[in-house]
Amino acid sequence: MSNYALILAGGSGTRFWPLSRNAKPKQLLDLFGSGTMLRQAVNRISGLVPSENIFILTNHLQEAEVRRQIAELPAENIVAEPARRDTAPAVALGIGLIAARDPQANMIIIPSDSLILDDEAFRALANEALKLAAKEAALMTIGIRPTWACPSYGYIERAGKFSAEGLTHDCYEVVRFREKPDSETAARYLASGNFTWNAGMFIWNVAHVRRQLAAHAPELADFINRLTESEHPNSFITENFPTLTPISIDFALMEKADRVLNFEATFDWDDVGSWISVGKYLKTDTEQNAANTPLNALSSGNNIIFSDSGKRVALVGVDNLIVVDTGDALLVAHRDKADDIKKIVSQLPDELV
Amino acid sequence: MSNYALILAGGSGTRFWPLSRNAKPKQLLDLFGSGTMLRQAVNRISGLVPSENIFILTNHLQEAEVRRQIAELPAENIVAEPARRDTAPAVALGIGLIAARDPQANMIIIPSDSLILDDEAFRALANEALKLAAKEAALMTIGIRPTWACPSYGYIERAGKFSAEGLTHDCYEVVRFREKPDSETAARYLASGNFTWNAGMFIWNVAHVRRQLAAHAPELADFINRLTESEHPNSFITENFPTLTPISIDFALMEKADRVLNFEATFDWDDVGSWISVGKYLKTDTEQNAANTPLNALSSGNNIIFSDSGKRVALVGVDNLIVVDTGDALLVAHRDKADDIKKIVSQLPDELV
Repeated sequence: MSNYALILAGGSGTRFWPLSRNAKPKQLLDLFGSGTMLRQAVNRISGLVPSENIFILTNHLQEAEVRRQIAELPAENIVAEPARRDTAPAVALGIGLIAARDPQANMIIIPSDSLILDDEAFRALANEALKLAAKEAALMTIGIRPTWACPSYGYIERAGKFSAEGLTHDCYEVVRFREKPDSETAARYLASGNFTWNAGMFIWNVAHVRRQLAAHAPELADFINRLTESEHPNSFITENFPTLTPISIDFALMEKADRVLNFEATFDWDDVGSWISVGKYLKTDTEQNAANTPLNALSSGNNIIFSDSGKRVALVGVDNLIVVDTGDALLVAHRDKADDIKKIVSQLPDELV
Repeated sequence: MSNYALILAGGSGTRFWPLSRNAKPKQLLDLFGSGTMLRQAVNRISGLVPSENIFILTNHLQEAEVRRQIAELPAENIVAEPARRDTAPAVALGIGLIAARDPQANMIIIPSDSLILDDEAFRALANEALKLAAKEAALMTIGIRPTWACPSYGYIERAGKFSAEGLTHDCYEVVRFREKPDSETAARYLASGNFTWNAGMFIWNVAHVRRQLAAHAPELADFINRLTESEHPNSFITENFPTLTPISIDFALMEKADRVLNFEATFDWDDVGSWISVGKYLKTDTEQNAANTPLNALSSGNNIIFSDSGKRVALVGVDNLIVVDTGDALLVAHRDKADDIKKIVSQLPDELV
């Protein structure tokens, strides 16, 4: 039984502009001075899965940078989606690529754009989930115990504890998947103790997930079947991937699947959704000014400062700012307006996006 | 009768950090995209005084940059003060240099760090003052009609109007020089109508000012006498200039002089004392954001933005900021705290000052 990993790295977004650009989104940035998040994801998976069994899905805009950053993978393991089609088609593509290598593989899917510091704890849990996938007819997820009533994550509702011989991590039967709730509902989820955040991490046996797709998402099952049988898989992907219905894997499969389990993460996790999240991991002074660069602050607090050149920054009498400096653009935003950065980006000339 | 000009360009300061540095203070910066203030001062004087009659006083730290910017002057007309000794010694040095060329010269002294846009009006007034200096036994100044009760300028108190044949500009007899007043006193000066701002511009005949110095500031008169007689003026300056008492020309001479006249400026004038002053001359959007660089502002107003690279700047939800970006340092300050920039500068490593 061999283990495979699929890293989803085709995400895009504008919340880290001006550091992020279309061709270099969050997962390809070194936000913490410890390598890009994609680099960290690959390192996290290595040691669990051999390099030749790690696949990365990206897109044409980002492909060159992904190949540059992750040069140690076999070239054919980095695959650019020919069109943007949400997570279900991407997951199906990854299943097809892995099934073509080993129809009995166990595989783990992780996003490339969340921050996990405790790689050892991640690998211990993932390893146990992969072993369980080999013998248990279930789709497995990893959930994050909520620390606040966040309305911008999906939630997984769970019921009784699942137990199996040798299982050392907490694992639960899943009742259903819940979309992003309103704040009140999120508060109720938090209070109940029966919900975890959906971190977009999946573990399953390839043969089992293909049977589940055949039952619940036949378009995707058919795509995988034809991909594994194709003599020219690259042309097949180019021609057929764009025809798939854009839908999330939660909707297409997880909510309908016969049996889903939810491991509770024993490691830290942060989806790093904005510069405010980045600030939590930067060096911070006594006035809660977080910076990745030498900082002199006078009568200033609660600021987040990032410069990709490492230049000196001086603050005088300013609070609650996000300051991001790059070679060709500089952002100064109020912390409370971080969500509006995308509005600015929509006004910019193409060469700055 | 020949006309000479002395441009005082040895000033220093930290209010324009990070753009300004010890070796590149305000007068050597291109703040308005129209050349440095020293460049503009030289251009303003040219057409009034031939190039070979223009002298610039600087200091050793700034000398190389001054020579680079003003390459058209004879090399010997740019002189570095061997020590910092306030304005009276600097003025005496300039008088000595000019007197050595022409003991009967008429000369105008101007600072290099104030902004004047209407060069034609300046030259018309200066030309008339130089003509008057040739025949009238008086020291002449140019005063700026106050527009507000500014407590950080010196004031010149004047009495009755001076008239002479052919004089087309308003000119007054000076009663006395007043140091920087407190705010109440400044308000009284403004209300009286008898005060002008002292802009540090002087016009006189060299022989006349030397007689006045002999009477009121003999140390300086003696320095000038010996400089004009020296066979090795450079060595003489190096040895003797540092021994002069540091004192302002207002104290040393103007307040004691037998007769001082005050021309009222018919041109605009701004001493550009801070980034806030610079903001008045930059391109401004409908929300009063002033910038020298392409700007996208969202829910942001009353900001001053300067980047020496011309990079794009984006503002989101911020007001009343001063943002100054250079290759190796970035300042973000509240407008009301512009005076505290110097406190930050005192904490910085030498290579950034």
